[in-house]
Amino acid sequence: MDRRPTIADVAKLAGVSRSAVSFALNGRPGISEDTRERILAAARELGWQPSRPAQALSRGRAGALGLVLSREPGAIGADAFFPAFIAGVESVLAERGDALVLQVTGPGDEEAVYRRLASDRRVDGVLLTDLRVDDPRPALTTELGLPAVVVGDADGAHGLCAVSLDDRPAFAAAVHRLADLGHRRIAHVAGPQEFRHARRRRQSWEQAMREAGLPPGPVLPGGFTAAGGASATRELLGLGPDRPTAVVYANDLSATAGLAVAQQRGLAVPGDLSVVGYDDTPLAAYTHPPLASARADAQGWGAAAARALDEVIDRGRADDVELAPAELRPRASIGPAPA
Amino acid sequence: MDRRPTIADVAKLAGVSRSAVSFALNGRPGISEDTRERILAAARELGWQPSRPAQALSRGRAGALGLVLSREPGAIGADAFFPAFIAGVESVLAERGDALVLQVTGPGDEEAVYRRLASDRRVDGVLLTDLRVDDPRPALTTELGLPAVVVGDADGAHGLCAVSLDDRPAFAAAVHRLADLGHRRIAHVAGPQEFRHARRRRQSWEQAMREAGLPPGPVLPGGFTAAGGASATRELLGLGPDRPTAVVYANDLSATAGLAVAQQRGLAVPGDLSVVGYDDTPLAAYTHPPLASARADAQGWGAAAARALDEVIDRGRADDVELAPAELRPRASIGPAPA
Repeated sequence: MDRRPTIADVAKLAGVSRSAVSFALNGRPGISEDTRERILAAARELGWQPSRPAQALSRGRAGALGLVLSREPGAIGADAFFPAFIAGVESVLAERGDALVLQVTGPGDEEAVYRRLASDRRVDGVLLTDLRVDDPRPALTTELGLPAVVVGDADGAHGLCAVSLDDRPAFAAAVHRLADLGHRRIAHVAGPQEFRHARRRRQSWEQAMREAGLPPGPVLPGGFTAAGGASATRELLGLGPDRPTAVVYANDLSATAGLAVAQQRGLAVPGDLSVVGYDDTPLAAYTHPPLASARADAQGWGAAAARALDEVIDRGRADDVELAPAELRPRASIGPAPA
Repeated sequence: MDRRPTIADVAKLAGVSRSAVSFALNGRPGISEDTRERILAAARELGWQPSRPAQALSRGRAGALGLVLSREPGAIGADAFFPAFIAGVESVLAERGDALVLQVTGPGDEEAVYRRLASDRRVDGVLLTDLRVDDPRPALTTELGLPAVVVGDADGAHGLCAVSLDDRPAFAAAVHRLADLGHRRIAHVAGPQEFRHARRRRQSWEQAMREAGLPPGPVLPGGFTAAGGASATRELLGLGPDRPTAVVYANDLSATAGLAVAQQRGLAVPGDLSVVGYDDTPLAAYTHPPLASARADAQGWGAAAARALDEVIDRGRADDVELAPAELRPRASIGPAPA
């Protein structure tokens, strides 16, 4: 097995001390020209290359961006957003051989993780995702002098550069379409309301209901999960004759589970109940019936966020970026309201 | 905005050169005791901390493990395995503040990415996942002197430490259960056969069929995707009176899509067709009917792989690890063969 040559190997071959090698390789004065040349020849012969940490020290750059996920590990596997987002970030980093440093943490350890990322200088900046209401991270990264961009609404960015993709038009389009199809009782199964995007989705459903002249129907928590979506749907279907004829879910995972619950109760989708998700996950077009959903370009979002963070690192600031909004993909899970 | 203090800041405050600071902070001889104390006092006053790259240089460690995904970015979002696996890796790294360095690459750039990881010394070792038949990576990492463990079968590890989780018993259990329920024509919708685990799953289905005294039925490619699973199922259902009464899919994504295709054709599941997946994704228990699948502990696998790689980095080798095999979760998508 090859071993990577070290400064000690170069020193041994050149017959000099390790610090002489270090002086020579870093182009610093203090050794004779003859010695310098002997050292450089030895380094070439051994194929010695400066390590990334050494380059980072001399360039003052880590050559890496950081992403901290504050979630239960089990919840990460259920989310279609992150892998696609990460792939987008990587598409920018790969061009120049930089890396993404990923950390997973519980909410309680979050601050310590960012503090360590800043003091370690392992990353040049961080991407802040899953912004919460009163999220402490924009202020924290500012305090730490750690370059950061917010992946989400400028509202929650506290002056940091925000790279946003508006999910509201898709929710509005879903409600308007359902209203056009004669639905009057349209419920919402919401994501966890501590997240800004979950709250915004609920608000856009409410606003669209008002615009359509409809009283906002019941809102139940769905937790962005299959179990939450199933349980909320069971509750909605138990409301008797006043039960909703359509449900707009905050994501596809809860919507797909809700679809199954309705079918298990003997209801036809969309004959008895219309169902809409959000995310356009790979499975959405392949459920029975295919799930109406909204397509957001998570990969493009990752790439745009990485480019904005680069700019913040280089220039200290970057303009906010607003990507093309999410678009409703109407599919067969939406139909006319039952008579 | 705070800025992290640098060696230059310490030098300025102490009124000495930057190299004097470097000598003092690294405990090297060549400066007077008075100067050293003045420098250390300045460093304390400014809250200077050694950067991670500087520590990496002095410890000879990057403090990071690497994972390279050779996939189309779009295909990553559809896979429930990676996020859970990564969460498991992180659970080991988080304890000591180490990081996971993630890179996404196309198959053509793969070798260059590993070569750069080795020469940069950005990671101390790599986890090799998604092993392919004749995978060049075990030999490549050995040649590069880059510590590595194989996440998968020892067969493909070429002497590297292998951390494996046997998926075969789950496929055998599914076939045996279906045979007990009277099924005689059982098809397999396979994953891409360049992957060792996809090939092994097909082989265990074949072997179980032979053990049950049944001729292995048709095998169609499903690509581990929803689109592939749907298209294979359409083809199987078009086989006329000899069509299979049960299908064992290589993963949940293709199985869930297959389930929907059968229902769209007006077939009852499991009355007319039994369906089995693999992965026990978060949605499996929440389809209609709930999808029989096999549970593998992807998170535990990630943790075990990280611990094994630690051992390889520290001691140059580690024993192979075999985790508890995947377990069939029989659910309502399996039933007696139609009369």
